Amino acid sequence: MFYAEMSRPELAALKESLEREYAGIKAGDLDLDLSRGKPGSTQLNMLTGMLDCISTAEDVRSESGFDYRNYGLLDGVPEAKQMFSELLGIPQQMIIVAGNSSLNLMYDTVVRCMLYGTPGRDGKCVPWIKQGEISFLCPAPGYDRHFAICRSLGIKMINIKMREDGPDMAEVKRIVESDSSVKGIWCCPKYSNPDGVTYSDSVVRDFAALRPAAPDFRIFWDNAYAVHCLYGKDVVLDDIFTECRKNGTEDSVFYFASTSKISFPGSGVAIFAASERNLAQIKPILGVQTIGFDKINQIRHVRYFGSADGIRMHMKNLAGLIRPKFDIVLSALDADLSDTGIAHWTHPHGGYFVSLYLLPGTAKRTYELCGAAGVKLTPAGATYPYGIDPADSNIRIAPTYPSNGELRTAMHVLTVCARLAATEKLLAEGA
Amino acid sequence: MFYAEMSRPELAALKESLEREYAGIKAGDLDLDLSRGKPGSTQLNMLTGMLDCISTAEDVRSESGFDYRNYGLLDGVPEAKQMFSELLGIPQQMIIVAGNSSLNLMYDTVVRCMLYGTPGRDGKCVPWIKQGEISFLCPAPGYDRHFAICRSLGIKMINIKMREDGPDMAEVKRIVESDSSVKGIWCCPKYSNPDGVTYSDSVVRDFAALRPAAPDFRIFWDNAYAVHCLYGKDVVLDDIFTECRKNGTEDSVFYFASTSKISFPGSGVAIFAASERNLAQIKPILGVQTIGFDKINQIRHVRYFGSADGIRMHMKNLAGLIRPKFDIVLSALDADLSDTGIAHWTHPHGGYFVSLYLLPGTAKRTYELCGAAGVKLTPAGATYPYGIDPADSNIRIAPTYPSNGELRTAMHVLTVCARLAATEKLLAEGA
Repeated sequence: MFYAEMSRPELAALKESLEREYAGIKAGDLDLDLSRGKPGSTQLNMLTGMLDCISTAEDVRSESGFDYRNYGLLDGVPEAKQMFSELLGIPQQMIIVAGNSSLNLMYDTVVRCMLYGTPGRDGKCVPWIKQGEISFLCPAPGYDRHFAICRSLGIKMINIKMREDGPDMAEVKRIVESDSSVKGIWCCPKYSNPDGVTYSDSVVRDFAALRPAAPDFRIFWDNAYAVHCLYGKDVVLDDIFTECRKNGTEDSVFYFASTSKISFPGSGVAIFAASERNLAQIKPILGVQTIGFDKINQIRHVRYFGSADGIRMHMKNLAGLIRPKFDIVLSALDADLSDTGIAHWTHPHGGYFVSLYLLPGTAKRTYELCGAAGVKLTPAGATYPYGIDPADSNIRIAPTYPSNGELRTAMHVLTVCARLAATEKLLAEGA
Repeated sequence: MFYAEMSRPELAALKESLEREYAGIKAGDLDLDLSRGKPGSTQLNMLTGMLDCISTAEDVRSESGFDYRNYGLLDGVPEAKQMFSELLGIPQQMIIVAGNSSLNLMYDTVVRCMLYGTPGRDGKCVPWIKQGEISFLCPAPGYDRHFAICRSLGIKMINIKMREDGPDMAEVKRIVESDSSVKGIWCCPKYSNPDGVTYSDSVVRDFAALRPAAPDFRIFWDNAYAVHCLYGKDVVLDDIFTECRKNGTEDSVFYFASTSKISFPGSGVAIFAASERNLAQIKPILGVQTIGFDKINQIRHVRYFGSADGIRMHMKNLAGLIRPKFDIVLSALDADLSDTGIAHWTHPHGGYFVSLYLLPGTAKRTYELCGAAGVKLTPAGATYPYGIDPADSNIRIAPTYPSNGELRTAMHVLTVCARLAATEKLLAEGA
């Protein structure tokens, strides 16, 4: 029965029963974690062969004889560029294969724009830090660590509504084309964090067609889940660079990807891609920052996966492992919440998260109740700029880390807490 | 015979004979490189076992069960902290074990100071970028990439004379204690790049006793060659943190080290160390920049070397390989230049370079002559701020990369070019 249709006595009785159930859970002394998009150990064990897949001097030498154990090659190992070029459909010459973290690349990219600027339409670079207050558009809910970069650097964040096919592009266009203090937008265009949304062709085309008021506006295109399909056929994301080329706006994109959720998180490789003009500005600065990234780890990825197809095959195997975890989450939500009317949730085709929308005003309370019962969630609000979910509704569920048994338990706790929080709220409102 | 004592006809005859020798060298079509402190392949082959020294899930797990294949541990693997703590004599809690490049750490540290500041004596952080023009002291000759960071970020560089026991501390003290726009100094305190100087105890104590005019002054202590002894007993560098603790100036030091010339350059690990107060400011910012560094590579170093003593033993073996290369350089200089009076050079106990001082006004010309004859040197001037050696005298020789045979050839070319440049200069002066 939908909670909204219940009488006060019915709600009160329900609340009491949920409280009893919650007390029982609390007594169980749980310690479970649904908070981060973090692979579980079974998933990591599938990669054990990667640890020692290179062993001789030959293995770390290029066809042309370059020794990857030594200094050099600022922009990465050619074989790795080729593999990721094929995987992502981006020309090799646009790619830098970097270190172990695309987050680090994104942070460094924003910092570089702050201190050095990025080429405007006339090619001139004016450091963002010299341009007064600047802003980023933040489609929300989104990735908390994107927002943390802006917050740390004092960049104002403007919420943009996420729809089922991507950000509200009418709003994006209106703001970007009128306000020259808007310098960037955070995008997670495929199997988005946390909603699992893949931007439609029309959204990608709208991005490419933007005529920003700021000559040095950049789209931060974090394609973190490019090959992370879980159900059915992989959804195709239109290529942003191809669309931009048609519009002469190629310079407006900074593209990021990584193998953090393909190989080992923290020991993968990160990828950056940008136009020739952007790279011509970036590489000399990057060459002051470092002599080069870890090329042995780059060639390790090439030797282990062999090719883009090797990565795709590995992702299929991984999906076989992760899919049951998503099924557990979705079944629990369906079983415990579908007849309550207090929640709706996403049914992602890929990525790392299920996004749960609770009765407005109850996400924080649900988070607290879960925490007190030993189930750690991503803090309510984290998926919004400044940690403030205007509706206090969204909870991001990360199913990959716990074992299947733990996940079942954690999900039950979550739905009990969500229902308890809803009855509290509805009773308080009616009082 | 000393060139300065030669008559003009003698000099002219010498020049002619050197020109003939140079022409012969040029005809030889050489392609040799003495330019960078880069290990040779024999040195790298000594580490082949490191490539596959971890192979199972057990190998990448901590004693406490932490899985280093997964996210987490922003400041590095405890076992690695312990090993480097022992190696460098720095308390573990002061250490961050980071990514593959200490240059990257140094660049990021300066950038962080620019954008966020660093705690002043009152604990407050004022971004350097908001403090008008700022300067760094640059003991010179020094490491070109230190100077490149300042140049890239628009930080003014002030030359400080290097003496046989470290920088001219009277001058350092005078400037640092009177000019609050001086925010930092670059130090390579042991087997320095390029002079091979180890700072004396008195110099280290003087650093610790500085009372900078700027409350947010920092000593960038790049201990790049901490365990890189080549001849005899390792020289002991006084511990800067210990001396600082006596003076209450522990906050003034940012300490850097790396395994770039211990394990694989580009695939080693970098180390940062700082006081509790500095780390308390830095870690939250670092946590916005990255989720963590490559922990698998960190534990790989621990498993391979086993302990600080394991590293020391490896460095002894390395020294056995590198020492003959230094001997070749020193013998060539001795044989070809000792009776000319046009040059003097360092006799380093460790590190990666021999520093050659030619007749003032001839380093650039020598560099050009070598280049045209197929021997690549570090550009003359590179070891000074803005690439300007006021005396146009210093040439940095990096003996590690070429084979011994190549090195002998390259050194002969260098001394011929140096002598030719000297005769040109002396004849032009006398004209």
